[in-house]
Amino acid sequence: MKIKVIKIGGKLIENTDVLASLSDSLAALDEAFVLVHGGGVMGSQLATKLGVEVKMHEGRRITDAATLDIAVMAYAGLANKRVVSALQARGVNACGLSGCDMAVVKSHRRPVKDIDWGFVGDVDEVNADVLALLLDNGAIPVVSPITFAPTGELLNTNADSVASAVATGLAKKYEVELVFTLDKPGVLLDVNDDSSLIPTITPSLYEELRREEKIHSGMIPKIDNAYKTIEAGVKAVRITSPDSLTGGTIVVK
Amino acid sequence: MKIKVIKIGGKLIENTDVLASLSDSLAALDEAFVLVHGGGVMGSQLATKLGVEVKMHEGRRITDAATLDIAVMAYAGLANKRVVSALQARGVNACGLSGCDMAVVKSHRRPVKDIDWGFVGDVDEVNADVLALLLDNGAIPVVSPITFAPTGELLNTNADSVASAVATGLAKKYEVELVFTLDKPGVLLDVNDDSSLIPTITPSLYEELRREEKIHSGMIPKIDNAYKTIEAGVKAVRITSPDSLTGGTIVVK
Repeated sequence: MKIKVIKIGGKLIENTDVLASLSDSLAALDEAFVLVHGGGVMGSQLATKLGVEVKMHEGRRITDAATLDIAVMAYAGLANKRVVSALQARGVNACGLSGCDMAVVKSHRRPVKDIDWGFVGDVDEVNADVLALLLDNGAIPVVSPITFAPTGELLNTNADSVASAVATGLAKKYEVELVFTLDKPGVLLDVNDDSSLIPTITPSLYEELRREEKIHSGMIPKIDNAYKTIEAGVKAVRITSPDSLTGGTIVVK
Repeated sequence: MKIKVIKIGGKLIENTDVLASLSDSLAALDEAFVLVHGGGVMGSQLATKLGVEVKMHEGRRITDAATLDIAVMAYAGLANKRVVSALQARGVNACGLSGCDMAVVKSHRRPVKDIDWGFVGDVDEVNADVLALLLDNGAIPVVSPITFAPTGELLNTNADSVASAVATGLAKKYEVELVFTLDKPGVLLDVNDDSSLIPTITPSLYEELRREEKIHSGMIPKIDNAYKTIEAGVKAVRITSPDSLTGGTIVVK
């Protein structure tokens, strides 16, 4: 059985029209999928409204107790249920999950070194049996980036990392394609020219592009991570825009 | 298979110590169960912090769009995930669900008559197959009072009504006891004397108590509703305090 694991950013959920369009695309897919969503801006907006200071370090959020509650409300609550209900309205039998639900995504609190990131989790394990139980019964898991330490702590987690862990976890049972959506059509030779899209990246092409410095530096960690998940068993990683879930750039072995 | 459907109020979730104690009691139960929770005060507190006016009519909340978002965040998000993670930490394989998740609780928006209640749902149907899929795989559903209209709308719903609908839905598959928790030990002959607890209410005793006006008027709708769910297939309805989930008053046929 083929499964897509699709990561979408929180930006796609905030606007009703954008969410409707994305949900139409998801409902049109031929394959079963797992959706992993972020929710960044919804959390920041709620924090601002509540007068809770958004603390950042090198572009990454520090999650204190008040910020964690906000993340749980915004991501596990509003963002997750909006996506699930938009999919349900289109006949997709979506089921929202956060990491604590059937302990589907276990993590640990990031150890304090130079910076105390607070209630931030690094993923340890995805319970593929839980996802398979839902998938094999025709349900589509919709996973929020709130994960769970077995001590009972909820932890705010990077949604890209959750998506990668879900994909590698499911790769033991299914043929998995991991899809990252971004606001570009895919990996471009010229970031200002959408027609310079590279449809397929192989290890030899990637090496060549890097050697010739033809690839944008921001893409390098994304493709490096893609190859890490491919080494861990994922069949392919797609980097594409949300309105072309079967297009964009595909990274393969 | 015997199943308890347990309704708890939102007040039990807000305080960490109270939630810990309740979770200990739930983890100690011999039977599988479904938990249905409210979340009233968490929603009101969040509304106050966000400067959203809480509109009431005859003691019941009117849910406008901003209030619905707050209810989804507070009930489907924070309250639900706090309960699930507290249970998981005690070895109970809890799975949080709102009505939209696998369309487990379908409702319709309450029709406008004298009052427009806004985004408030009245329950139409509980999908017992979804709950049975989880229960039969060792998971414990934890259901928030956010339900779902098949058009895609999320709706704020009375948690007692959700619990009754879950119990009657499950009664087709299991032997169900519906448990309502309150801040009294159960149904009392004298509301100021906890030792006046009535352990068992039968239809003939209920008739007698009403005739002799020995039962507090606030209990009458609760017991009337209990008999409605019993007529709909539920085996018994327990009215008890959260620290005595197998005690209190049991209402039987």
